[in-house]
Amino acid sequence: MKKPIQDLYPENLAHCYGCGKNNTQGHQLKTYLEGEETISRFTPDLKYTAIPGSVYGGLIASLLDCHGTASAAAFACVAEGISLEQAQIPVRCVTGNLNVNFKAMTPQGKELVIMGKLKHIEGRKITVEMTLSADNVVCATGEILAIKLRE
Amino acid sequence: MKKPIQDLYPENLAHCYGCGKNNTQGHQLKTYLEGEETISRFTPDLKYTAIPGSVYGGLIASLLDCHGTASAAAFACVAEGISLEQAQIPVRCVTGNLNVNFKAMTPQGKELVIMGKLKHIEGRKITVEMTLSADNVVCATGEILAIKLRE
Repeated sequence: MKKPIQDLYPENLAHCYGCGKNNTQGHQLKTYLEGEETISRFTPDLKYTAIPGSVYGGLIASLLDCHGTASAAAFACVAEGISLEQAQIPVRCVTGNLNVNFKAMTPQGKELVIMGKLKHIEGRKITVEMTLSADNVVCATGEILAIKLRE
Repeated sequence: MKKPIQDLYPENLAHCYGCGKNNTQGHQLKTYLEGEETISRFTPDLKYTAIPGSVYGGLIASLLDCHGTASAAAFACVAEGISLEQAQIPVRCVTGNLNVNFKAMTPQGKELVIMGKLKHIEGRKITVEMTLSADNVVCATGEILAIKLRE
């Protein structure tokens, strides 16, 4: 069974509140590489309110951030010929820039689906385009410039 | 004593997880207008980790989002001659676009200071520039395009 990208991070870099398997109080977002795209699924707790009925924008930005850095790590591995079918990858990315467009209110109580595509990769800089959808409606789009940490 | 901008929001629009006074489980960020700038102060709990030792980027984006919409509401009030010295303002903004540049790792255990300046206001669209600092070092900058909700 395929492991989520975040579960392949080096143990000492797996404490992220949004997606680290070693942060038991966090969101534990899990991202998978499927073909040439990445996917995460997340159903927010109802406390994450913006305007009542809609999901808190800060959470949406958080999900896109963690989805983006995981996607960047996966795309970097693919580019470098590093297998994702192993216990750990020697790649971890951090965010240089995150840009989020809120297109429509994100309804509460729904599973959100976040998709990522590689836009550009050059050296340690990886740009990923993302969408966040509920019920097949795109509620937010995002772009991340992720930076690969030096080993 | 001056009230934070978020505490002036209409009661039915004060449930935001990041800054709503009616969301008891949330961050309850408080933003103040001081002269021509806005300021919020927030010390994140240690669970909000990114790479160990640094503050979770998703929380930084969240703080900039809530600081930005509150700043936009304040700047809109000033532009329209609406006093902030009252129990409630008839203004609430939501986020159209949020752009965050992560300039340096944000250290944990420190009070973060978020500042906002009006960049542009036209009709219902308000653009605010922001900085987030720890120990007087700018760790992140941000820009928000906020949209004023119709009454």
